[in-house]
Amino acid sequence: MTRDVAEAPTLIDGLQYCNWSRDIFQQMRQGGMSAVHATVSYHDGFRDTVRNLVEWNWRFRDHAHLILLGRSADDIAAAKASGRTAIFLGLQNPLPIEDDLGLVEILHELGIRFMQLTYNNQSLLGSGWMEALDGGITRMGREVIAEMNRLGIAIDMSHSGERTTLEAIELSTRPVAITHANPSWWRETGRNKSAMVLKALAKTGGMLGLSLYPHHLRQGSATPLHEFCAMAVEVATIVGVDNLGIGSDLCQGQPDNVVQWMREGRWTRSDPRSAKVAFPAQPDWFRDNRDFVDLAGGLNAAGFSDSDIAKVLGENWQNFMRKAFRPGA
Amino acid sequence: MTRDVAEAPTLIDGLQYCNWSRDIFQQMRQGGMSAVHATVSYHDGFRDTVRNLVEWNWRFRDHAHLILLGRSADDIAAAKASGRTAIFLGLQNPLPIEDDLGLVEILHELGIRFMQLTYNNQSLLGSGWMEALDGGITRMGREVIAEMNRLGIAIDMSHSGERTTLEAIELSTRPVAITHANPSWWRETGRNKSAMVLKALAKTGGMLGLSLYPHHLRQGSATPLHEFCAMAVEVATIVGVDNLGIGSDLCQGQPDNVVQWMREGRWTRSDPRSAKVAFPAQPDWFRDNRDFVDLAGGLNAAGFSDSDIAKVLGENWQNFMRKAFRPGA
Repeated sequence: MTRDVAEAPTLIDGLQYCNWSRDIFQQMRQGGMSAVHATVSYHDGFRDTVRNLVEWNWRFRDHAHLILLGRSADDIAAAKASGRTAIFLGLQNPLPIEDDLGLVEILHELGIRFMQLTYNNQSLLGSGWMEALDGGITRMGREVIAEMNRLGIAIDMSHSGERTTLEAIELSTRPVAITHANPSWWRETGRNKSAMVLKALAKTGGMLGLSLYPHHLRQGSATPLHEFCAMAVEVATIVGVDNLGIGSDLCQGQPDNVVQWMREGRWTRSDPRSAKVAFPAQPDWFRDNRDFVDLAGGLNAAGFSDSDIAKVLGENWQNFMRKAFRPGA
Repeated sequence: MTRDVAEAPTLIDGLQYCNWSRDIFQQMRQGGMSAVHATVSYHDGFRDTVRNLVEWNWRFRDHAHLILLGRSADDIAAAKASGRTAIFLGLQNPLPIEDDLGLVEILHELGIRFMQLTYNNQSLLGSGWMEALDGGITRMGREVIAEMNRLGIAIDMSHSGERTTLEAIELSTRPVAITHANPSWWRETGRNKSAMVLKALAKTGGMLGLSLYPHHLRQGSATPLHEFCAMAVEVATIVGVDNLGIGSDLCQGQPDNVVQWMREGRWTRSDPRSAKVAFPAQPDWFRDNRDFVDLAGGLNAAGFSDSDIAKVLGENWQNFMRKAFRPGA
């Protein structure tokens, strides 16, 4: 891919779930963000997801000078040309498709471009990383992967179990994404990914978006930028510098009951006497969208070339989206 | 509008609700139909309507060489050029939007291009022709009319009460449609329309689709073609030949329990001892889509010119759709 160095860089964040507001969209512009993948639903069924999409429709109207709905990779260039940020919508859980394959196409028509096959727990399609046993991709999961491949919805395995993730990578005819996770050898948690998963992902042209969420970082909120960037260098030697991006998992402005809801969903009833969970503090070098471009300095100090930095901060996601979103036959 | 007489005529039916099948789509092609407005839902809420749209998505895939989804008036020419029929989707009842203005846009994104503000009964938006009192357009009705105008969804008043219909015509900034009805002075039923309504409709460029449903015809199923066409000539003098079309209300292949469901919806519980209602027989001159083009002979005998016949059988609906579906500001 050739780049015009005089042009503004293409900056793409592979996942955010902010408490969306005009302020945040203005910060995206101040930070020069070309595109952001934004989560629409976690523990929401179809109807609630449609309501969330209605709210996005209103945001696109109310802030039309700041953001636009991304439907294809071409919309990244369109957003850049008009000084806006393209928002690509995604689901962190397949609950919105219920047990109805037809809802995959309905949600694609409504703008959904990413979907996780599982959140943390077992779904109709596979297993999440928190389950004791991961039985892999289910019978329905195979159908949904084929339908997502047909339509051009990116399969996101960030929260899935290892076996489910490996099988999805193998079954999918298009490259798969892990939009927001780090290697598990760097920060040990079942939520992060093993070298085996990362190698399988990269072998099929899939993308890893490195997470900036403190619970995925070696030293949590105190992790220094140079340590994160040294990890990025190491990961690049395994997945290749063309398959690496950022998926910050930024949850800016969310009240703490949201992280409790993320974890518990609608079938856990927490003990009201138990300590409430809270969002961790952001690392001081990534508070919000305005800091994204400054990751370049850390990556440079860690040894990435300018052209590799351009890839990691946006061009790789753009290339992935070209392959992932192109309408099928 | 200029027409190339060497070209196949533009034939458009303003409303059908058939038991859709490959046979029926083939008959559309045999009859040279350019476009058909097809009903998606009667007494269905949002989720059931989405399921009906899923079934349409599958029809468009399974019969892609016969039909295509019409999203704009340009799709009529696209359908003609590729030897197919454009299907424009519509709702006979606003139940699918619940009390959620945002669902109007969601349904527009999913392909809906016509919506009745009421079926036979009172809705959240206005009153149907069967209610004892018609209070006109409600507070929510005003918002929905404005939203339909903004998006480019045609407002259909076929089953509404007189006051609701007149107020919708006045409030709408785009021409309104009565997709399937006849004048009430010709066949007296509250379902047909008064001269006052037809004049108000035509004054704003709205369209009347004359119905071929036997209960709307003077002599029911036995109504001869020449009597129907004589009525058409009379109506043309009132609404103008540019505002007149056909909306056959063809319900081909539907079992009789469907007409009972159409009438009773989900809140009437019929006495199982009462006689079941049944679909009336079609007039012998309009059994299905293959007979549509032969209406030309009757219209000609009744005194319409060739150019007027071309307008009534399709060009007027095409012009209406250009105005009705064009995306708003």
